[in-house]
Amino acid sequence: MRVLENPDLEEACSLLRDGLANGEVLVLIGECEVEYEGRASSTLTSGERVVIIKQDGSILVHRPEGYEPVNWQPPGCSYRVSVSDDGLKIIATRLSPHEVLSLLFRRVDLIVSGKLQDKGVFSMYASEDEMKRAIELDPSLIEEGLKLYTSEKDLGDAGYADFVGEDSKGNFVVIEVKRTSAGTKEVLQLARYVNEVKQRVNRPVRGILVAPSLRKKGQVLLEQLKLEFKALSPEKCSKVLKKSRDVSLFEFMERWRR
Amino acid sequence: MRVLENPDLEEACSLLRDGLANGEVLVLIGECEVEYEGRASSTLTSGERVVIIKQDGSILVHRPEGYEPVNWQPPGCSYRVSVSDDGLKIIATRLSPHEVLSLLFRRVDLIVSGKLQDKGVFSMYASEDEMKRAIELDPSLIEEGLKLYTSEKDLGDAGYADFVGEDSKGNFVVIEVKRTSAGTKEVLQLARYVNEVKQRVNRPVRGILVAPSLRKKGQVLLEQLKLEFKALSPEKCSKVLKKSRDVSLFEFMERWRR
Repeated sequence: MRVLENPDLEEACSLLRDGLANGEVLVLIGECEVEYEGRASSTLTSGERVVIIKQDGSILVHRPEGYEPVNWQPPGCSYRVSVSDDGLKIIATRLSPHEVLSLLFRRVDLIVSGKLQDKGVFSMYASEDEMKRAIELDPSLIEEGLKLYTSEKDLGDAGYADFVGEDSKGNFVVIEVKRTSAGTKEVLQLARYVNEVKQRVNRPVRGILVAPSLRKKGQVLLEQLKLEFKALSPEKCSKVLKKSRDVSLFEFMERWRR
Repeated sequence: MRVLENPDLEEACSLLRDGLANGEVLVLIGECEVEYEGRASSTLTSGERVVIIKQDGSILVHRPEGYEPVNWQPPGCSYRVSVSDDGLKIIATRLSPHEVLSLLFRRVDLIVSGKLQDKGVFSMYASEDEMKRAIELDPSLIEEGLKLYTSEKDLGDAGYADFVGEDSKGNFVVIEVKRTSAGTKEVLQLARYVNEVKQRVNRPVRGILVAPSLRKKGQVLLEQLKLEFKALSPEKCSKVLKKSRDVSLFEFMERWRR
């Protein structure tokens, strides 16, 4: 990793050229102004910022506050860098659609260039709300033939059951969903819902606790109370949702920036 | 700006604490793993990354490729940092909703801390498509009482007019929109559309060129051809669109990450 503190603009430009040629990650901190011209256009007057150019040619301009970049370009940009009396100019061009992001550094406080190795695996797991949405989309995640009547069923003092429905044999089913390992507390919560429902309906009522796992004491209690457990992980729910998700963050950002 | 190259983890931790206490921007480059636990959860196994903590307490974890951060937290996080045998741990906690982002650095190649001054003004101007959308939403941007029939009207060999419509007196109106200063070329383009429309309809036809400005030669030609010009800037269209935009990038990202 090459690091230059308070370089003059020629030095910064030369490291920048070299890093870009080698496909390295570059981080620049300094005072710059920014212009964007493409499907839309924007200007940002002078200020101190952190700029990252990534190994895939994407670029991000970050102000000292706010977690969104103020300007950016996606991977695949080509770069031209030069120094003039005005300062150090970085032009990131995207061909299709034609979009040009221009940065003019008046002063560079720090420039870093280096190749980063990242083979890490990113795994995203669903939230409890997302697990419920997945179950709504595909009730067979719980069992084949299950039909859901309603979610967040108001059971008076007993609380709100995540789902009530009917199984393939016509039994009434009460479902409680948890995204982490369940125990006696969750079993008792389900039991409360089931007891309440039994007083309201005139047919067999099943209670199913849905969670990635059930701890030992919970298992014992579950059996005593004649309730049921269905193992379902956030990971699996994420997959169901992913299939049905029609807009990615990337597409949205692309649409938004137009 | 304080810069440490290849610091040991204790040194890095101490600069990190100091920078956080002073509300500085921090940039860390090194090998880390990341866990997120909140409404959803995620894990990212070890790799080399660029991490930015901003002056408002937001944090971004960037892999060497892809312009989106792999993990992030919005402004207002509180931080705990510590060193153990495992490495340098950074925990960014958001209270409501409760979300915890944990980073464990095995190795720090570079840490930078400094207060950045950024009073720059960001201005975003609409694209031509957005200008057209704004006009569709509010035709009075062109003139009071204007009704639009259709956009991208096919006029055969003459091309496609951006809009055709009718003014408050029942005249037929043909509109061509440009997002940058217009000249003779754009005037002639509009004239072509107007002539084509005149052969098709049996009533007076007006042609209006809409752009932020019209250059001198264009003005002369426009008058000769008895066409009209309406000044409309992308800035103004942006404001119209902003009012009607129901989902911000921030809200979207928040929804997406759940």
